Amino acid sequence: MFIPRGFRFGAIYSGIKRDASREDLTLIVSDKNCAAAGVYTRNLVCAAPVTLDRSRTPAKNIRAVVVNSGNANACTGQQGMKDAKQMAEWAARAAGASKTGALVMSTGIIGHFLPMEILEKGIAKVSQELGDDAASLEKAARGIMTTDTKRKLFTRQIMVDGVEVRLAAMGKGAGMIAPNMATFLGCVLTDAKLAPAAAQKLLQKVADDTFNCITVDGHTSTNDTLLLLANGASGSVDVAKNKDFENALHEICAELARSIPADGEGASHLVTIHTRGLKTKLHARRIARLIAESPLVKCAFAGNDPNWGRIVSAAGYSGVDFDVKKVTLHVNGFLLFEKGAPADFDADKVSRSMSENHEIVVELQFAEGNADARFWTCDLTTEYVHINADYHT
Amino acid sequence: MFIPRGFRFGAIYSGIKRDASREDLTLIVSDKNCAAAGVYTRNLVCAAPVTLDRSRTPAKNIRAVVVNSGNANACTGQQGMKDAKQMAEWAARAAGASKTGALVMSTGIIGHFLPMEILEKGIAKVSQELGDDAASLEKAARGIMTTDTKRKLFTRQIMVDGVEVRLAAMGKGAGMIAPNMATFLGCVLTDAKLAPAAAQKLLQKVADDTFNCITVDGHTSTNDTLLLLANGASGSVDVAKNKDFENALHEICAELARSIPADGEGASHLVTIHTRGLKTKLHARRIARLIAESPLVKCAFAGNDPNWGRIVSAAGYSGVDFDVKKVTLHVNGFLLFEKGAPADFDADKVSRSMSENHEIVVELQFAEGNADARFWTCDLTTEYVHINADYHT
Repeated sequence: MFIPRGFRFGAIYSGIKRDASREDLTLIVSDKNCAAAGVYTRNLVCAAPVTLDRSRTPAKNIRAVVVNSGNANACTGQQGMKDAKQMAEWAARAAGASKTGALVMSTGIIGHFLPMEILEKGIAKVSQELGDDAASLEKAARGIMTTDTKRKLFTRQIMVDGVEVRLAAMGKGAGMIAPNMATFLGCVLTDAKLAPAAAQKLLQKVADDTFNCITVDGHTSTNDTLLLLANGASGSVDVAKNKDFENALHEICAELARSIPADGEGASHLVTIHTRGLKTKLHARRIARLIAESPLVKCAFAGNDPNWGRIVSAAGYSGVDFDVKKVTLHVNGFLLFEKGAPADFDADKVSRSMSENHEIVVELQFAEGNADARFWTCDLTTEYVHINADYHT
Repeated sequence: MFIPRGFRFGAIYSGIKRDASREDLTLIVSDKNCAAAGVYTRNLVCAAPVTLDRSRTPAKNIRAVVVNSGNANACTGQQGMKDAKQMAEWAARAAGASKTGALVMSTGIIGHFLPMEILEKGIAKVSQELGDDAASLEKAARGIMTTDTKRKLFTRQIMVDGVEVRLAAMGKGAGMIAPNMATFLGCVLTDAKLAPAAAQKLLQKVADDTFNCITVDGHTSTNDTLLLLANGASGSVDVAKNKDFENALHEICAELARSIPADGEGASHLVTIHTRGLKTKLHARRIARLIAESPLVKCAFAGNDPNWGRIVSAAGYSGVDFDVKKVTLHVNGFLLFEKGAPADFDADKVSRSMSENHEIVVELQFAEGNADARFWTCDLTTEYVHINADYHT
């Protein structure tokens, strides 16, 4: 594991969640001011921490990120904004930063005010338990989990002009969380040197190809937040135009993004959808997304059914113009549909390859142009319905 | 039951479906030429019968509609087009019409050629068994069913200038059918007098508010077809501008449309979503549709969970601009969310009302303008996943 230098991490159970065996409060502190960037939910109904972070990023004075699970601080009006600010202020104080030197993320129940007494005590406590070792970083990644079954933490190291530059990305899944929202939270830390505006530009670019290309159920959350903090502690030169850094950031974000549907609620398959040969990237993304979100396609995958008709017809209702007589489809490398007509394939063999692998790869080739896209999703199982139907507010 | 005059109906088991106890071939014949109109799937990947009917409507010389279930004649290329034409020609001959005097609808398995020998014999046979009584009409409605658990047939009678005018509408559901497609097929018959162009205009208008406002899983089929046949046998005046006729057509189409999600695959609730007070009808429809298609909302309904957060946040990611502080939500008449904040409601009581009724009514009030919309959908149950995952091509 590569741990970015100049950061300390910690997480505790503070009392927000009911289950005291799971951390619910994570604090990340940087020794130096960080350049910070953020990409947020496009949901008009967004939570107070999203509004606060959005107003603060890009920033050059960030020293801390505080994250709570168990309460989303969403649909909480002016009181919610006041609470988010206060929570960030406590974290900033604990990090020795200026009043506005912290960012905040929340995930959990919607429509309830944050338990501020618990948070005040919790932030004070976790700030006494920070460490810069692997165990502390892992604990921080666990602290932001909700219905995730696996912690999501990925790290990388690259050389920039002879200097070791490290990146770490942690996140929580797009699974539904008690009781209301599917939410993605992510935080990328690096000890590279990067200016705020460049950090923002890079993060947005990378997010479009990674976090904006995953879907579990197509329901955009009120709290989605992705942060990037760069503190320069590696002593590197500015990496704004360093291709290796951009590639590493892209890779680590792709790895984190992919881990979300792989651990989607009730998921038995991670599904990668490649659309190729469209006129524009927008067309390629639109078709990939519609396939990724079709309940029929997702149910077929759950049943290991190489149902090419559902895939091709989902492309057909995308509104994108294409010549179906030039469309070819492969699933797990098997040719299912060739130039507008069903191919002669062994359905049992394809089905077996789907049931034997956790991953399914769909490749849909068009002949309209040179634009490609890739989407990640998961299948739709009865377990997903159980998780999301059998809960009561 | 009101049976439009001048039509005869029949259905038989011809041998397309495996289950010989269920009709799979329906023939409807008019004594006189009908004005015929059609509204079709917007899926770019559309089946041969859709291409054929689209090229023929609006028409003034239609005498027959032939419908088979068990085979969709979709993704079948030039052979499929030839077969659809041939099938229509046999039906036209049986009705004593000109070669192009029939329309055809198909539903069932995708990517297989029609069994033409079976169809030739079947059409000859069913044409000998036509009747103009209620039993014959009911049989015709049964013949187009696939996974529907109930036959869908609705009739109306109105007075036009002292003349009894009758309408009958039959359809099959948007449930998934073995093995590949969710499909809606519908046919409205009337003995009113109506010119082809006016019939087309009326049908499109009515479809936009009825059949284009239902969703089970958001997956547009390759075969969706809605036909209107008007033969003038009532002796009425032309009803193109008759408001009573338009209202009756609207009502009967709404009744048929609503019956589709009510009998959606695995559905335990019919859900009506009203969005009100938007700037444009497009906005109102877009929000209603996103709520209707959110798997999270649909799972909550399956669990009788008055989960207002999922409903409000689905509106939030519609891309429609609105002031959330002026949004109010009722479910089954209970106030759940008022002017941007959760209302104080008895969740058990609301949940009980959901579990005790097959219907759930969602009313989302905005303060942006005067445009309203209404969408019908069903909930998402484990049974839906079973039906669509446990089948193998």
